[in-house]
Amino acid sequence: MIPLPERERILLGPGPSMVSPRVMRTMAAPVLSHLDPDLMAMMDELRGRLTAAFRAPEGSFSFAVSGTGTSAMETAVANLVGEGTRVLSIVGGYFADRLAGMSERYGGTVTRLSYEWGRAVDVDAVRRALTATPADIVTIVHAETSTGVLNPVEQVAAVAGEHGALTVVDAVTSLGGHPLEVGKWGIGAAYSCAQKCVGAPSGVAPITFSPAALERRVKARSFYFDLGLLEDYWVRRKYHHTICASLLYALREALLMVEEEGLEARWARHRHHHLALAAGVGAMGLSLLPPEPERLWTLNAIRVPEGVDEAAVRKRMLQQFDIEVGAGLGPLAGKIWRVGLMGASSTPAIILLFLGAFESVLRAQGAAVPRGAGTAAALDVLGGR
Amino acid sequence: MIPLPERERILLGPGPSMVSPRVMRTMAAPVLSHLDPDLMAMMDELRGRLTAAFRAPEGSFSFAVSGTGTSAMETAVANLVGEGTRVLSIVGGYFADRLAGMSERYGGTVTRLSYEWGRAVDVDAVRRALTATPADIVTIVHAETSTGVLNPVEQVAAVAGEHGALTVVDAVTSLGGHPLEVGKWGIGAAYSCAQKCVGAPSGVAPITFSPAALERRVKARSFYFDLGLLEDYWVRRKYHHTICASLLYALREALLMVEEEGLEARWARHRHHHLALAAGVGAMGLSLLPPEPERLWTLNAIRVPEGVDEAAVRKRMLQQFDIEVGAGLGPLAGKIWRVGLMGASSTPAIILLFLGAFESVLRAQGAAVPRGAGTAAALDVLGGR
Repeated sequence: MIPLPERERILLGPGPSMVSPRVMRTMAAPVLSHLDPDLMAMMDELRGRLTAAFRAPEGSFSFAVSGTGTSAMETAVANLVGEGTRVLSIVGGYFADRLAGMSERYGGTVTRLSYEWGRAVDVDAVRRALTATPADIVTIVHAETSTGVLNPVEQVAAVAGEHGALTVVDAVTSLGGHPLEVGKWGIGAAYSCAQKCVGAPSGVAPITFSPAALERRVKARSFYFDLGLLEDYWVRRKYHHTICASLLYALREALLMVEEEGLEARWARHRHHHLALAAGVGAMGLSLLPPEPERLWTLNAIRVPEGVDEAAVRKRMLQQFDIEVGAGLGPLAGKIWRVGLMGASSTPAIILLFLGAFESVLRAQGAAVPRGAGTAAALDVLGGR
Repeated sequence: MIPLPERERILLGPGPSMVSPRVMRTMAAPVLSHLDPDLMAMMDELRGRLTAAFRAPEGSFSFAVSGTGTSAMETAVANLVGEGTRVLSIVGGYFADRLAGMSERYGGTVTRLSYEWGRAVDVDAVRRALTATPADIVTIVHAETSTGVLNPVEQVAAVAGEHGALTVVDAVTSLGGHPLEVGKWGIGAAYSCAQKCVGAPSGVAPITFSPAALERRVKARSFYFDLGLLEDYWVRRKYHHTICASLLYALREALLMVEEEGLEARWARHRHHHLALAAGVGAMGLSLLPPEPERLWTLNAIRVPEGVDEAAVRKRMLQQFDIEVGAGLGPLAGKIWRVGLMGASSTPAIILLFLGAFESVLRAQGAAVPRGAGTAAALDVLGGR
């Protein structure tokens, strides 16, 4: 029988990221049932905290889907895309493609605005697409986890709004790590996950529907993801499914930590640590896939240097140093590593640990990486010397 | 802010049931990512343990859906019921109705064989229904959580088989508590949950598809519940969603405890404790909804006596004794309490605790309950005197 892990994994893949001991401890609390008055009171609180984390407008319905980020994606789609709904899907990565495909599964008439994987979408191209093919819904991934790219969601939502379209935003890798203003930017619906910048285990997924989105909902085919039934449960305490109290405790504690840190400070932390990592990686002679202004702070897509065995590096990082980094997805398989610095994984100590281990493993693979340069460059940014 | 619970809730509702400390402790283990080789090896083990728990035939695909029992229900339906699939839904309770409704959502042409809530289905009625209206799929709830009734799944699956129909079984309240033989009985697909007789927190839901069911699958509309994609992930290690390692640890430990106890011994324990509770309740002058041979061992539907305030009793049980019991659903709201004795909640100590508290609360409500009679009758069955 495979034993439970005896050492902490340093989770630097595209998620899950590390979970702080404070959040882990909450899961040891006694289980409450899904209809327990105390749990339902916690869920009321949680709705408020989620609305705050999303910076969603008053009247939004924010809650957590009982599943992973993908289940939240499907909840957004199932309730906003029906037979014949016109969808403009902005696709420059794996998750944007998943979102477009899901919209097709739910009967949407989907137009894909495809652009280069590794770049941000051009807002003018969105404007042209919406003029050429009017849409009810625009789907966009804020932080594309497959490419390490940040998309200009604020501008895209504005353009969509001018064209009368509702914007659905995948914020799986941005909530809690990058500025996200559901209200100010006029976003219709946004969803995320627990296990990235928020800092809890996966299994419950934050989502918010603005008042405009609530008005434009369609009849959901899915029962599990039916917004009306989920509102009945979260708001009117009518049984729908048996939510996991342990995961709610963890999500709540993680959101409390987000609040204590402050969203702005948390965004700044993610940015600062990304810059340190990027400086380190650059000093090692490696480069990131997206150009500088389009880079995520939460996930770094590092190009695999010529002649280096991508999978062997990941394997050795895991076996020798207990560090997990992610592989490329789709057309980027074998071409990039994905190194996440999210939530509790975004610390100076972890950056040093990663750069040291990465240098060692790359050198063992025969790459010409200068000794100590990565760590020195990162420390310069971190202000350590 | 609502504090985390400081005392253990005695969970005697329709689920979640108690989680043993041994299972709770596993959730404190370090988080592994959804693609970590160690986690995937555990998942291979888990597939085998789930096939064993379901007594599913060789070649079955058993795994856990990343959601609650309702998500497993939708996974079964989404992959076996498509546009025009002919479904005979056997409906004598809330969950059977949910299963029928879900089949309609997925495009099935559903015929409902309705029968009295609180009774088991008549096998001859199933035979007549299948003769009158041929079906591709027969849906049946093994242990109807809303009425406390056990359905004759073995006989129904045999009749369905004679008529060329595949049987889909809701085993949410039976897996680990009542005999269930997916292979021997010729069941097509069966699903359950983690938080009842299996003894883990909710959030991952066991499911099994027999080889016959795997052959008859339809194209799923849902992405999250798409069996092909879930097989890609569980078997071929291709990313689909970020499964929660903490919940898998708990489910695995709970299944290990099921194995150590032995399925037959566990079924016998649930039966023995149900008989003790039923004797106690009977001695208190109360009665159970289903007639004796149709009663669940895992969930006791106790009729609310004339003149007693059903909700007040539940509230007082919770506030004074930390004991949760369930309310009636649908047409049974206000008419029954649902008292689960499942998994770690099925112990002699908990029966005594429940009967003592129940007597006290009923007397406080003015019910004419003889002092000590319930406990005495239960102890007679338990062999305590």
